[in-house]
Amino acid sequence: MVNQSGKPIIFSSDMTRNFRSFFAFILMSYLLISCNTTSNNSTLVETIIEFNEAVANAKPGDAIILKNGIWEDSELLFAAEGTDEKPITLRAETPGKVFIEGVSSLKFGGNYLVVDGLHFRNGYSPTEAVVEFRVDDNNIANHCTFTNSVIEDFNKMQRDDSDLWVLFRGRHNTMSNCYIEGKTNRGPTVRVDIAGRESINNYHQIINNHFGPRPTKGGASGETIQIGDSYTSMSPSYTMVANNLFEKCNGEVEIISSKTNFNEFRNNVFYQSEGSLVTRHGNYVTIDGNYFIGDGVNENYGGIRIINTGHTVTNNYFYSIIGKNFRSPLAVMNGIPKSPLNRYNQVTDLVVAYNTYINCASPWQFGVGSNISQKDVLPLSEIRSARPIRSLVANNIIYNENGDPSPIIEHDEADGVTFKSNVINNHGLAFKAYDGLENLDFQVQEIAPYIFMPSETLKIKAYQGFGFDEFSKDIFGNSRKNDTSIGASVNPAAKDPMILDKTKYGTNWYSNEVEANDPTTHTVSNADELRIKINEAENGDIIKLKAGNYAIETSLQIHKRLNILSDDKLNTILTYSGAENTALFELHPKGFLNLKSVVLKGNSSQYAFSSINKNMFTHFGLTVLDCAISDFNYALKVYKESFAERITFQDTAISDCTNGLELSEETDDKGDYNTEYLTIKNCDFSNVNRNVIDYYRGGYDESTIGGNLLVTNSNFTNCGGKEETGILINTRGIINVAISENTFKDNPVKLVALLWGAKNNSHSNNQITNSGEIKVEENLKLKLMY
Amino acid sequence: MVNQSGKPIIFSSDMTRNFRSFFAFILMSYLLISCNTTSNNSTLVETIIEFNEAVANAKPGDAIILKNGIWEDSELLFAAEGTDEKPITLRAETPGKVFIEGVSSLKFGGNYLVVDGLHFRNGYSPTEAVVEFRVDDNNIANHCTFTNSVIEDFNKMQRDDSDLWVLFRGRHNTMSNCYIEGKTNRGPTVRVDIAGRESINNYHQIINNHFGPRPTKGGASGETIQIGDSYTSMSPSYTMVANNLFEKCNGEVEIISSKTNFNEFRNNVFYQSEGSLVTRHGNYVTIDGNYFIGDGVNENYGGIRIINTGHTVTNNYFYSIIGKNFRSPLAVMNGIPKSPLNRYNQVTDLVVAYNTYINCASPWQFGVGSNISQKDVLPLSEIRSARPIRSLVANNIIYNENGDPSPIIEHDEADGVTFKSNVINNHGLAFKAYDGLENLDFQVQEIAPYIFMPSETLKIKAYQGFGFDEFSKDIFGNSRKNDTSIGASVNPAAKDPMILDKTKYGTNWYSNEVEANDPTTHTVSNADELRIKINEAENGDIIKLKAGNYAIETSLQIHKRLNILSDDKLNTILTYSGAENTALFELHPKGFLNLKSVVLKGNSSQYAFSSINKNMFTHFGLTVLDCAISDFNYALKVYKESFAERITFQDTAISDCTNGLELSEETDDKGDYNTEYLTIKNCDFSNVNRNVIDYYRGGYDESTIGGNLLVTNSNFTNCGGKEETGILINTRGIINVAISENTFKDNPVKLVALLWGAKNNSHSNNQITNSGEIKVEENLKLKLMY
Repeated sequence: MVNQSGKPIIFSSDMTRNFRSFFAFILMSYLLISCNTTSNNSTLVETIIEFNEAVANAKPGDAIILKNGIWEDSELLFAAEGTDEKPITLRAETPGKVFIEGVSSLKFGGNYLVVDGLHFRNGYSPTEAVVEFRVDDNNIANHCTFTNSVIEDFNKMQRDDSDLWVLFRGRHNTMSNCYIEGKTNRGPTVRVDIAGRESINNYHQIINNHFGPRPTKGGASGETIQIGDSYTSMSPSYTMVANNLFEKCNGEVEIISSKTNFNEFRNNVFYQSEGSLVTRHGNYVTIDGNYFIGDGVNENYGGIRIINTGHTVTNNYFYSIIGKNFRSPLAVMNGIPKSPLNRYNQVTDLVVAYNTYINCASPWQFGVGSNISQKDVLPLSEIRSARPIRSLVANNIIYNENGDPSPIIEHDEADGVTFKSNVINNHGLAFKAYDGLENLDFQVQEIAPYIFMPSETLKIKAYQGFGFDEFSKDIFGNSRKNDTSIGASVNPAAKDPMILDKTKYGTNWYSNEVEANDPTTHTVSNADELRIKINEAENGDIIKLKAGNYAIETSLQIHKRLNILSDDKLNTILTYSGAENTALFELHPKGFLNLKSVVLKGNSSQYAFSSINKNMFTHFGLTVLDCAISDFNYALKVYKESFAERITFQDTAISDCTNGLELSEETDDKGDYNTEYLTIKNCDFSNVNRNVIDYYRGGYDESTIGGNLLVTNSNFTNCGGKEETGILINTRGIINVAISENTFKDNPVKLVALLWGAKNNSHSNNQITNSGEIKVEENLKLKLMY
Repeated sequence: MVNQSGKPIIFSSDMTRNFRSFFAFILMSYLLISCNTTSNNSTLVETIIEFNEAVANAKPGDAIILKNGIWEDSELLFAAEGTDEKPITLRAETPGKVFIEGVSSLKFGGNYLVVDGLHFRNGYSPTEAVVEFRVDDNNIANHCTFTNSVIEDFNKMQRDDSDLWVLFRGRHNTMSNCYIEGKTNRGPTVRVDIAGRESINNYHQIINNHFGPRPTKGGASGETIQIGDSYTSMSPSYTMVANNLFEKCNGEVEIISSKTNFNEFRNNVFYQSEGSLVTRHGNYVTIDGNYFIGDGVNENYGGIRIINTGHTVTNNYFYSIIGKNFRSPLAVMNGIPKSPLNRYNQVTDLVVAYNTYINCASPWQFGVGSNISQKDVLPLSEIRSARPIRSLVANNIIYNENGDPSPIIEHDEADGVTFKSNVINNHGLAFKAYDGLENLDFQVQEIAPYIFMPSETLKIKAYQGFGFDEFSKDIFGNSRKNDTSIGASVNPAAKDPMILDKTKYGTNWYSNEVEANDPTTHTVSNADELRIKINEAENGDIIKLKAGNYAIETSLQIHKRLNILSDDKLNTILTYSGAENTALFELHPKGFLNLKSVVLKGNSSQYAFSSINKNMFTHFGLTVLDCAISDFNYALKVYKESFAERITFQDTAISDCTNGLELSEETDDKGDYNTEYLTIKNCDFSNVNRNVIDYYRGGYDESTIGGNLLVTNSNFTNCGGKEETGILINTRGIINVAISENTFKDNPVKLVALLWGAKNNSHSNNQITNSGEIKVEENLKLKLMY
């Protein structure tokens, strides 16, 4: 986005203080430049050849206009030389009507270039990035802008085929007002690369974007923004990430992974996003005026996690964030003494000031990641025993309407942290006293949805620490001069910051808010009709099976969200006669199947359900309710690089199968796994020979928090007879496992399960007869990932 | 040093370009402020009580004047508040006539304070520093200046009693025009501490100082300047070290150890200094316009050693530097992959441009410190296998009048280094060709002592790399605009930079150039006369012993530089009857004894020579020529924490002693040892039972390069019979050992010596009869020091 003189807008913190006027300004600027360019050379291009020619001839001030329509397999190489006053613009004829599809990408090379109004969809990049601020190492972009564009579901065909959607190189480049959604393959969505002198001190701007859903990746390397890496973590970056909305950015535990120095994160909104803003490497980062909005239910919504030296966390607002440990509202980690470059440096010189925490659970956690107890199973270079030092927590407000028994958690002693002029209203609930955290009765008022600020001036006056004069404004941009208020806002705060007004973020032409259609119900009575309706149905439709026998000869492919069900389970029987090792229901990317009240029968050589074993470029999902599955080779086979956020079997019988539910192909041990939530409720397993439940995650990485296995109220009988591991339920490497209220009877195995005590593995109230036992090992030896 | 408005002078690179006018400016400024302050309150103080009162009452613009004389045991606590326009000054009544002695120190606390004209001598600090820019953690100095002062031999009483002479904390503090000499105890001379937000981005200035001799320490922690440490190596420092003369700064292998970010080293002169300027930790350091002057003989004079990311080495001049490996003119190290914080990060993004190397040996060395071959004896976290990457060497000139067979040495492949537009005149001698290093015939002219620059414009034009526009001036401050010269100066360079004009550095009242007195020769004929003359003699005098028997009953204490000799060795016999375990010659701090042509005899229970075993606060030295030593417990006993740069025995017989030469008490294994050079030439050892030669250094630290043992042309007969180690010559941990041309006969030991093959240990042409053998072990297992 550029202003009327053609110059990219440089974000300053003042601008963000008033979102609305800023956005109006941007819109106006946009219109003005649209007019302006008519006085320069403006070329409409229709083919890639015309495009290349126009680029080759482009002069400062020129505009190259992509004709509306689909640009298939288009590698847009935008290498030209604009000027500060007269950038060269590449824009859509109509913003949002130019679709970049197929094997396509955009590369900037040169100076002062603007790309505006494109929509990337139905395709993927041939290279390491969809949009790249570099043609090659000899032609790096500077002062270039990617704006008002969309990248949607532009995944490579395999999860492990890593890429980025936007790769920053060079200096002074901008990504603004874009909407980004649906990355599921390996690799951060946006990455700032600062390797090389050309890319340090870059002052890039990532501003006013709407980062829409990035689904859980099921393993590492699913950040939404990553700035640098450990190998460049000593370099100055000065990247500004401001005024963005992060919505459902769930890719992994880090939404933003800051790995270089002097970055700034200002006035961003983290909403329904399962992760944290993390200063993973690098130092002296500013985190100011951001909003972390939770719901008091989902423990995966996180806050700010701090590693390394010299960060300031000021004027941030946390609402109903109940994440624990790594995901706590403020997680200050322990470091490794003399840490290796790629591990955890000690936290020093941290300042946490003027933040407000409303209804958060244990908002301040120190010594997070302390693993001194694991020193016998981990190498010394993995032991995080270095506590934060020279750190200050001052002028913060905690308000908890239900009271919080432990507003501060010390995973290791917080003896290097000084508390000054902090206040908590804990509504009378007792908690451990700290010097510098005063218990005070005060009221808060709701000034906007999710936003509560004190309705009165508190009697505690702000502490003036070293350098606090730099914290001259509050979260809304109000001056703190001559004001002694603590917390994120000066008192009284009354203005609605409109943080969830989506018109403030992303493009001026695309909305991710779609009206829900009422689903259509299709009734079918034989196999052919079923297959036809599966093809014809719209996303979310219902296919109702009349009672009867359905003789299915080849796989039913699921490419969309479908509900398939009957009223009469016992008499609605799908008999599968397809080839060996094919699946009755084959789940393709975006195939989400809810199956209810049917009987599935095979001939013992096939699969009841499977993902596809190649090009599973995005997620699937499966819910099986009230079904009976028998005589298959596998009840469920999930192939490598397939991922479902949820797989649920409930009220279902699985019997006479060679294998049960198998999700154990991610044996590269890079921390990946195949489903976030595998849920088995009220099911019966009988005569399943092996892989009864086999759910695997390999590779030790302390910061990955998944997957989740729940097995409850289920019966396992005569299962596991051919299980080579001797374990009935294999959960190796899965972080969260709960096995409860089940009955295990006559299963010829050594162990029902081998649980990982140091993680969140538990078992309770199981009845075990003639089936071995459940064993808990405190520390599993795993392959280190780095 | 301040200017006429009372503001400290801030160093800018322009200023240094013309030393003379800069110095004149400073002098003028000094006079002006002296006049100026008369208009303010000026208080002459005579006692510490008056001083404290004056400080307590000091107002901006005031001057506190220390009365001339000796200030004994004075802890000067200068805590006050000046202003930018009106600093508060503490100065000598007459510069150089105020001596701070005894247990004394100076601490600054507050803002805008200047200390001027003091002379610290004959004492030591009671705390961790002599001069400290901090009273305590709550009163740190900012904008304070220590100027025009001397610190001389202000060592703590024991070598291991560590301190600093100047400790920087806070911000914007200056040390200027000081003269510093004689630190021998543990600890850098000057240290900038940047732990804590108060001390980062400090912009300290260390300018126009004369760093006089810092003798070899004999182990680590003998830097002249250290900026930060590995624990703060991620922090921005911005310390400026400019326009200083380093003369005989030999303390250890690092003269300057830069351990933080963004420091600048400009226009300094390194003269006769055994060490290097090292970017030990931290990144993005500027090393510009410095002079490294060697003599083509001493291999200990070093240049610039590079570790870490992003340094620029520009416009530097190297003359006759023949140091090898760590001490080479440009030593670019290998790093440890993912290095621990306190070890060796990889070199990346280095730029070496516009430097000139005249008559240097193998000036460019890459992969220095590569120790891949030691991977079996060192832990993986010690293996330096990460080669420099993304590095550029451009526009440099090498001139070698004798030709250099290997101007570039690749200890490991330099495949991450690009060479552009470099030129060498190797006078026809063949060397390995490199792209980007052109062999060219050109002339140089001597424009000043040690300074040779091309006398013609070279046909190679400077390469313009990324960011090279920042290298806008040459070593003399001439503009590079519109000039394509390579090397340190634009052509033609004609002006004498007067780098060794000592009036440009240090104080305006102290000179370290003392006229050599002609030594007096005192003739003595009996023990009493000898003792009296030893006391009376001046430094450097000669005491001549007439032939005869000298019955010495108590130790002769040597506190100065003395030559004791006779004309008639066989008839000049010193018979020692002193107590058990006392020494005939007891060497005290500053005791340097040259003994020649005498016979020394004991009663088998005493020592012929020893250091003192406590308070050996500075060095001693010993040369024994043409003597005969017999019937002692020890021929030489050197106690822990004693150090001599040189100990030499030549043409001397040592016989019938229980122990020979013992220098093996530094068993803390911190890398310390007791003499730099132990030389045994043309000597006879017979009937010495143990510790025949025992010279020890413990603790593995790859960057320490000493000590040095030479044993040559000597005979060892019937020695080592009671040696517990079974080794005749013990050299464990000594880096440089040469044993050659000796005869070993009938020594009942297992080994003559056990040498360290990986280091510089050698043996040749020895005749060994009935005395075991000389064994070489490639890698000694040593205790790691960190």
